[in-house]
Amino acid sequence: MAAQNGSTMRLPHPPTVATWATAGGKRESTSPFAQGFDLLYDDNRLERKTWEQAEAFLLEQTARRCLEKGSITPEQVNLALAGDLQAQCTASGYAMRQLQIPFAGLYGACSTMAESLALGACLSSTGLAEQILVMTASHFCAAERQFRMPLNYGGMRTPTSQWTATAAGCVLLRSEGQGVRIPSVSFGRVQDLQVKDITNMGAAMAPAAADTLLRYFQAMGVSANEFDAIFTGDLGQVGSELLEQLMAQAGMPLHNHQDCGCLLYGSDPQVGAGGSGCGCSAAVLGTHILPELESGRYRRVLFVATGALMSQATFLQKESIPGIAHLVELTAPEK
Amino acid sequence: MAAQNGSTMRLPHPPTVATWATAGGKRESTSPFAQGFDLLYDDNRLERKTWEQAEAFLLEQTARRCLEKGSITPEQVNLALAGDLQAQCTASGYAMRQLQIPFAGLYGACSTMAESLALGACLSSTGLAEQILVMTASHFCAAERQFRMPLNYGGMRTPTSQWTATAAGCVLLRSEGQGVRIPSVSFGRVQDLQVKDITNMGAAMAPAAADTLLRYFQAMGVSANEFDAIFTGDLGQVGSELLEQLMAQAGMPLHNHQDCGCLLYGSDPQVGAGGSGCGCSAAVLGTHILPELESGRYRRVLFVATGALMSQATFLQKESIPGIAHLVELTAPEK
Repeated sequence: MAAQNGSTMRLPHPPTVATWATAGGKRESTSPFAQGFDLLYDDNRLERKTWEQAEAFLLEQTARRCLEKGSITPEQVNLALAGDLQAQCTASGYAMRQLQIPFAGLYGACSTMAESLALGACLSSTGLAEQILVMTASHFCAAERQFRMPLNYGGMRTPTSQWTATAAGCVLLRSEGQGVRIPSVSFGRVQDLQVKDITNMGAAMAPAAADTLLRYFQAMGVSANEFDAIFTGDLGQVGSELLEQLMAQAGMPLHNHQDCGCLLYGSDPQVGAGGSGCGCSAAVLGTHILPELESGRYRRVLFVATGALMSQATFLQKESIPGIAHLVELTAPEK
Repeated sequence: MAAQNGSTMRLPHPPTVATWATAGGKRESTSPFAQGFDLLYDDNRLERKTWEQAEAFLLEQTARRCLEKGSITPEQVNLALAGDLQAQCTASGYAMRQLQIPFAGLYGACSTMAESLALGACLSSTGLAEQILVMTASHFCAAERQFRMPLNYGGMRTPTSQWTATAAGCVLLRSEGQGVRIPSVSFGRVQDLQVKDITNMGAAMAPAAADTLLRYFQAMGVSANEFDAIFTGDLGQVGSELLEQLMAQAGMPLHNHQDCGCLLYGSDPQVGAGGSGCGCSAAVLGTHILPELESGRYRRVLFVATGALMSQATFLQKESIPGIAHLVELTAPEK
């Protein structure tokens, strides 16, 4: 895993997180971070006809709440970067149809919150866009049908499997102003250690998180313990253990590592190895990481969201599961 | 269709197209632009096991040829932006697994070549990344299975249907140097006039092309006839006529409009209303538009790739088809 400085970008004018919003569904209402959500829905259908429409609506409502909190209208946003897990990213497409903001679609699987933050921060830092929305969503029922089996099949879950969050997160980035800052970002490379078990995504993604962290530390000349916390999302319990092993083997042990997938549902026994889905790390970012940075309890953290880049077709074709991890450095507001 | 200046970005240091490469399959070998392809494959399977793997391989080979033409190695590229039509963009994910370049995944359906060029140009123009690869691919057989029916069903094609190109394009952008330049870009908004016919994508996408063009002209204070040509991709014959009607109605008739979908296969009677797929506009860009700009025959053109943001699931759920169009201004090298 050689370092490649080019993929780590120090932003000359670190953009600020002006505000953000998060939304969750029924299970998210029992999260240890439940109080941090802006919107919580008892009914995961959100009064829509399909799970897919429910996800699009969840994302749209989260974006609208973020705009409200930022006291701006959709017309004042230069660009929205959004992605989700549905085939052809339709949750984002249909949400953006309602919002009418210029829109560039992303696909980073569960790494989308970090990918959109990283790309948005680059565009924002250079003044090309004054106000950018970055966002993502996932929906448990839409994702089960998309990647595994329709819920009606009542398939058994393995202990290594993770629970796709019904959640969305949206962040408003500004090139100027007060707030949490993004001084640097790093885009990941696809890593594939030939894991083929689609009920063990954490194992497939852990090598990507290790690769991105090691390249970032080398490019920036820093070590893990210079950060108050390093958040991955969403390796779950299995993937987190593998990441910690890989980092220790590389001589860079992580003593301050937490995983969004392990955090979101606390010790809920139904979720298997933890949470997952684009919305999981987005929700932990919005309900825990950003508030703790704003209050100054954290001064400097890394947010490293991971994604598994497979589909149902590639699984049926017996392909292995490639993983990717994008990294965003977040620092507390200057006093 | 009100103008919104925020989505049009004038790039302070227009990046250059250092080089590019294109690849095509069997039908593309009979294109009027066949001689412009860097790679042509007689067998659309490319000696892979599946159509999906063939598409990933096509994209990978196109990127490798582009790197060769630019005399650089993958390690010298700061970032690759790539997307395709497969669910979860797996063609791009598996291609990037082989290339090991830091990678941000995009989804813009058939607008991906313009989306990746526009985002890449923004990042490149600001010096954050010196060398960026932007690329996309599509594959007829993978796309038919993905969006409509497996080929084995032998479904009849309607006259309005378009032929997904088996093609890939890759462009190397540099923040410095000689070459075709990108002085401005514009990101589109999702437009949806309630077209529900998945065999008539041109009609679904035409309103998005009109919206982006009108907003761009207003933001830049220019009119259509200041450009040597305005290329859309891929509206096909049906969508092109609708776009020209919409533009005439808006008081901005297009007398210099050409469509990549109408151009790629010439008058081939088998292709219906024209070509489509991410690879179609990417192939016309690489085999026709960029060469004509480099030779100086064109001085200033617009490249406006359009995408239909639906999936098989949203079609079966009877959703309408949202469209999007992203715009890139291209100018001839300075003498």
